[in-house]
Amino acid sequence: MEWQLIIERLNSLLSANRHNELRGALMMLNVVDIAEFLSTLETDKMLKVFRILPKDISADVFSYMDDTQRQKLIESIGDSEIGSLISDMFIDDAVDFLEELPAGLVKRVLANVDENSRKIINRFLSYPEYSAGSIMTIEYCDFHMGITVHDALKELKRTGVDKETIYTLYVLDAQRKLLGTVPLRKLILADDDVKIENLMNPNFICANTHDDQEAVADLVRKYDLLSVPVVDKEGRLVGIVTSDDIIDVIEEEATEDIEKMNALLPSEDEYMKTSVWTLAKNRLPWLMFMMISGIFTGLIILHFETVLTAIPDLGLALTACIPMLMGTGGNCGSQASTLAIRGLAVGEIAPSDAPGILWKEFRVATIVSVVLAVISFVIQTLIFSRSCLVALTVSLAMIATVVLSKSIGCTLPVLAKKLRLDPALMAAPLITTIVDACSLMILFFFSSVIIH
Amino acid sequence: MEWQLIIERLNSLLSANRHNELRGALMMLNVVDIAEFLSTLETDKMLKVFRILPKDISADVFSYMDDTQRQKLIESIGDSEIGSLISDMFIDDAVDFLEELPAGLVKRVLANVDENSRKIINRFLSYPEYSAGSIMTIEYCDFHMGITVHDALKELKRTGVDKETIYTLYVLDAQRKLLGTVPLRKLILADDDVKIENLMNPNFICANTHDDQEAVADLVRKYDLLSVPVVDKEGRLVGIVTSDDIIDVIEEEATEDIEKMNALLPSEDEYMKTSVWTLAKNRLPWLMFMMISGIFTGLIILHFETVLTAIPDLGLALTACIPMLMGTGGNCGSQASTLAIRGLAVGEIAPSDAPGILWKEFRVATIVSVVLAVISFVIQTLIFSRSCLVALTVSLAMIATVVLSKSIGCTLPVLAKKLRLDPALMAAPLITTIVDACSLMILFFFSSVIIH
Repeated sequence: MEWQLIIERLNSLLSANRHNELRGALMMLNVVDIAEFLSTLETDKMLKVFRILPKDISADVFSYMDDTQRQKLIESIGDSEIGSLISDMFIDDAVDFLEELPAGLVKRVLANVDENSRKIINRFLSYPEYSAGSIMTIEYCDFHMGITVHDALKELKRTGVDKETIYTLYVLDAQRKLLGTVPLRKLILADDDVKIENLMNPNFICANTHDDQEAVADLVRKYDLLSVPVVDKEGRLVGIVTSDDIIDVIEEEATEDIEKMNALLPSEDEYMKTSVWTLAKNRLPWLMFMMISGIFTGLIILHFETVLTAIPDLGLALTACIPMLMGTGGNCGSQASTLAIRGLAVGEIAPSDAPGILWKEFRVATIVSVVLAVISFVIQTLIFSRSCLVALTVSLAMIATVVLSKSIGCTLPVLAKKLRLDPALMAAPLITTIVDACSLMILFFFSSVIIH
Repeated sequence: MEWQLIIERLNSLLSANRHNELRGALMMLNVVDIAEFLSTLETDKMLKVFRILPKDISADVFSYMDDTQRQKLIESIGDSEIGSLISDMFIDDAVDFLEELPAGLVKRVLANVDENSRKIINRFLSYPEYSAGSIMTIEYCDFHMGITVHDALKELKRTGVDKETIYTLYVLDAQRKLLGTVPLRKLILADDDVKIENLMNPNFICANTHDDQEAVADLVRKYDLLSVPVVDKEGRLVGIVTSDDIIDVIEEEATEDIEKMNALLPSEDEYMKTSVWTLAKNRLPWLMFMMISGIFTGLIILHFETVLTAIPDLGLALTACIPMLMGTGGNCGSQASTLAIRGLAVGEIAPSDAPGILWKEFRVATIVSVVLAVISFVIQTLIFSRSCLVALTVSLAMIATVVLSKSIGCTLPVLAKKLRLDPALMAAPLITTIVDACSLMILFFFSSVIIH
């Protein structure tokens, strides 16, 4: 059925107060879709529908609702309801939610969960933001050495229902040190009396609590994992990160890179929910920096005043070429820096490749610049009937600008990586600013040589 | 152990021809790492090591090797070896590999697999590129209605070892129409005599063979799925897409967007493996287009010749402001378009939000432009001691440029989406080109008004 039609039907059941039928209809939907339906409702209606939901899925639905609605819900429901709601959530979802909540509400929530959950949540809240610890969950299945396949499966039946994933099982020693991992498929396919250590992979991939979430995402991507165990300094298993959270991390990191590459301070909130003031604040720093750079670039023009005023017609023709030259230089630089930044981000390029990249970009720039210079020469002479000398000056300046901007564009991101800065900062806006100044100097240098 | 040390140890075993020990050492590694080790070797050594690998993991290792090496390997091994290698791979990996192979080799490979595999591979190769059909695999577990949990688990033990994932099971009718999905966890946790239809979710999420891979990625992201069933027009199950492939799709789509946003024709190959000519070819179209636009932008300067030459000092001061004004306009436009493009890509913004976005950007632009205009005014008058009139002209032009460029920047991507074009094309390079022309006209318009 069309989503629009589903919404209409649910709404008509809701406004007719036919709660049992509404509950029945909601049960036919995926929890993600129920959360989406709730997001279309006003607060009082949303509360009503949320209360209609069966208890066993309300925590799941809550995990997928948006922060504003969740906060409103928490503010409106009773203390005991809060307690059971949070206890029914997976730890990683609960922590995610609490991180976005105002401090006062966090206090109230934590006061209403049992002591054990409170301790765990507090520990999780203390991991650094964007670390493996901050995105992991504790709902995994672990076993000790010596257990047989038969007993492990029996144990799984008893405890597995509350786990976020049971598809990878973890084998621990008495100190909870992680010894190996067993994919559930191996357990299912093995004979009943086999010992779990005979199925276990002792060369497992794992992350540390303080590893950056991006490093964990790299592991999942590289080794095609469904989940990654997270251990503390002593090698004890403290949590797992599941692939659905990794998909979110990969998406967020791409967004962050794209924002940085376009002169924006990264923001975590959705565009439509971010205030005008915050948006302005995220944009001003780079704009101010680049405007001031632009002012100084303008000084180059004043410095070469004599070139522009000596022969007024020539000066005007040169001035008319500034937008083309600056634009082309900026675009060339941004192309080169984009490939370098993305290559570094997805691991296709290493800083040690720098000489190879520079040599490659130099050759690409030579081809590209000669083609552009010829086109420019033809247009300047044939269409605008400028003198060959002017057209030649501009074409030579074009070649030099393209080669220089491609070289700068591919070098700066790699250099940033070597200096442990974020390569994404060395993108179009900064490159353009640098290249603008260079292209003006190149143009005026060639012009003054030719005039003399 | 450090990766560098592992490589050294493997290399020393290899050069000492201690093959049994080498095989033992390789067995301690993940297949992904074995493939990485192979990629460091020359062809003859690589072939030697590949042959040492136990048969049951060589197909897995082959799946993770890079295309150049795989092609060399296929060219060097015998027909029967090719046949068993391809038959041991998952269909999606085999199809991926064949898609990159020269036609002659594809023919040889297909001639050496059994008829059934050949038929399946040929069908998969015929799905459109980037469709769900082209990235799906057929190694899934399906059951018919009526089977009990006990029998399903017994069946799984028999057949599951060759499946890419057994964590979601599919229930089919006699015509192979998909009726529902059962997560393995439900099967494990259920009692032996329960019928599979009682565990099954009839409201499953699924994709069609011709759906775009990006749409499948959206489903996985939205519903946190481990795999998505793919059905044909009649609703019959024909394959599944697993989350590891979706992670690759999400990564590729982000790369493609970033490339398009920076005036590059998207390329699928790694930067270091792409030839200089291909790189140049991918960059020239946009560069030529934007260079020619730049030439026409320059005509604006010639058109307002009188403004620049009437009072030479004023003309020079205005010319000196061109880089700053064009730069700031371009940056403002690129910021706005980036947020719109990314918002559309991750589904945070819908084309119907257009009026809201425009109103928001208008307010952000007002704040940002006033701040920039004040800073510019202060710098122009106090530091460069230009007349208040010139400084005011520039500041007014700044405000108009910023407001206009933010409006254009946020509108064009949404408009592109409405016209079913790719919003990523409406990014910095194109926006900058448009804004460059606008900012010049605005500057000269204000200047001529003030001069008169």
